[in-house]
Amino acid sequence: MNVENIQSVTLEEAQAVAQAAIEKAREMGQPMNVAVAEVGGRLKAFARMETAWTASISIAQDKAFTSATLGFSTQEIGEMAQPGQPLFGINTTNGGRIVIFGGGVPLMRDGHVVGAVGVSGGTPAQDHEVAEAGVAAFG
Amino acid sequence: MNVENIQSVTLEEAQAVAQAAIEKAREMGQPMNVAVAEVGGRLKAFARMETAWTASISIAQDKAFTSATLGFSTQEIGEMAQPGQPLFGINTTNGGRIVIFGGGVPLMRDGHVVGAVGVSGGTPAQDHEVAEAGVAAFG
Amino acid sequence: MNVENIQSVTLEEAQAVAQAAIEKAREMGQPMNVAVAEVGGRLKAFARMETAWTASISIAQDKAFTSATLGFSTQEIGEMAQPGQPLFGINTTNGGRIVIFGGGVPLMRDGHVVGAVGVSGGTPAQDHEVAEAGVAAFG
Amino acid sequence: MNVENIQSVTLEEAQAVAQAAIEKAREMGQPMNVAVAEVGGRLKAFARMETAWTASISIAQDKAFTSATLGFSTQEIGEMAQPGQPLFGINTTNGGRIVIFGGGVPLMRDGHVVGAVGVSGGTPAQDHEVAEAGVAAFG
Repeated sequence: MNVENIQSVTLEEAQAVAQAAIEKAREMGQPMNVAVAEVGGRLKAFARMETAWTASISIAQDKAFTSATLGFSTQEIGEMAQPGQPLFGINTTNGGRIVIFGGGVPLMRDGHVVGAVGVSGGTPAQDHEVAEAGVAAFG
Repeated sequence: MNVENIQSVTLEEAQAVAQAAIEKAREMGQPMNVAVAEVGGRLKAFARMETAWTASISIAQDKAFTSATLGFSTQEIGEMAQPGQPLFGINTTNGGRIVIFGGGVPLMRDGHVVGAVGVSGGTPAQDHEVAEAGVAAFG
Repeated sequence: MNVENIQSVTLEEAQAVAQAAIEKAREMGQPMNVAVAEVGGRLKAFARMETAWTASISIAQDKAFTSATLGFSTQEIGEMAQPGQPLFGINTTNGGRIVIFGGGVPLMRDGHVVGAVGVSGGTPAQDHEVAEAGVAAFG
Repeated sequence: MNVENIQSVTLEEAQAVAQAAIEKAREMGQPMNVAVAEVGGRLKAFARMETAWTASISIAQDKAFTSATLGFSTQEIGEMAQPGQPLFGINTTNGGRIVIFGGGVPLMRDGHVVGAVGVSGGTPAQDHEVAEAGVAAFG
């Protein structure tokens, strides 16, 4: 049949991803905001630790949006978005929702993007590490 | 002392509120989006059930924002926002984030608003009922 | 398996819906803008006739967004959005993208919303009639 | 006479441009979003292939907007928008709708811009190639 067949991360899966990320952040002692997006970039689950930076609430969601809608980690997109590189300027598209530093990672299944996790609250390197801990909890 | 009282719902409390609302929605057989806001209206926790209406993702968050930042249920605000009533037009303030139909309810502690729950996915009456189930899980 | 399985209108189907609507508008002699949204409300196909009102470009898209993300025609939502009715105020949610007058109609398959058509350029009654001509072309 | 020249691409022309671009994308095996803007940058026609990146829906439209309203390809504008170059920062004007990487190309007639095509879904080089295939179908 000629229909688009979109698989997406479920709520239970998204909650497990978010919880694994939160536990990693607690272990690091760094308050974080964690967002999980479904296929299409829509918010599926979110958790915000006490005292995490408040600007990071939307950054976490936008990192998840970015990786779910472009299929790369925000770290990788950041490299392509440097001056002189192919995607320089992409961060002002989509109403400014594209984030070009680490912390967003796609959730893959059978070679397809089915969602993404976005983390914000520490350095981009810390955020990426916490996001990867979330991804590791995804079957 | 003249300081802003920053008592707020914690992540664990917000997750318990969201979970109780999700369980009520499952019991009703109606897919819902559930948001919990902390003091100041910022997103604290979010959970989206499979197949819930996608327009409701932001409505749920804005209902939580509305009740956390105005201190009333969105059902009550809706009565005050009818033509000829004192708050007619309030829904176009705050960048359009004020919702004036049922589904948002404040979370109170010691007589103070410490957050709010916002639910969207069914009728406003159903959304309000699910939000109240979330509030009931708040100690 | 516990995955979200989203069927969506395809490009060929969306183009056939848009073309049928455009032909109906030509027959009526009323220049129109026609948008088709996929599951989740994202734009799938669009066609704008010469001299159609320019404000209607975004209204057509937002009508398709509204019906795809809420599952009702914008005519029906308009009835529920009158003062004193359950959804009064819904048109200021979702960043102002919810339209509450006729011209948006969901595309259904096997009892599920798989997209929507949105038409703008004439009266809401004309727009709804043109949208229904588009829906009729959907298998 | 001092009047605005409102010559513009017609719907039939815009649909032919979009179709040629879509066929090129299919030939390349890369799912794409294709937008055609009329004079003034307003959306005239749009087509989205199954599974094309969702962030690219608005990027395609904004590339068409950019080339229709500035008269250059987005690739050329991208060169002028690098640090130290004359248009550095232009991508944050117009509410963030100016795109500064390849995929947008003006449609010209008798030396005048009468519209533009914008493509997004692959690399900027692929997007530009698909846009040029669309332009080639414009008489």
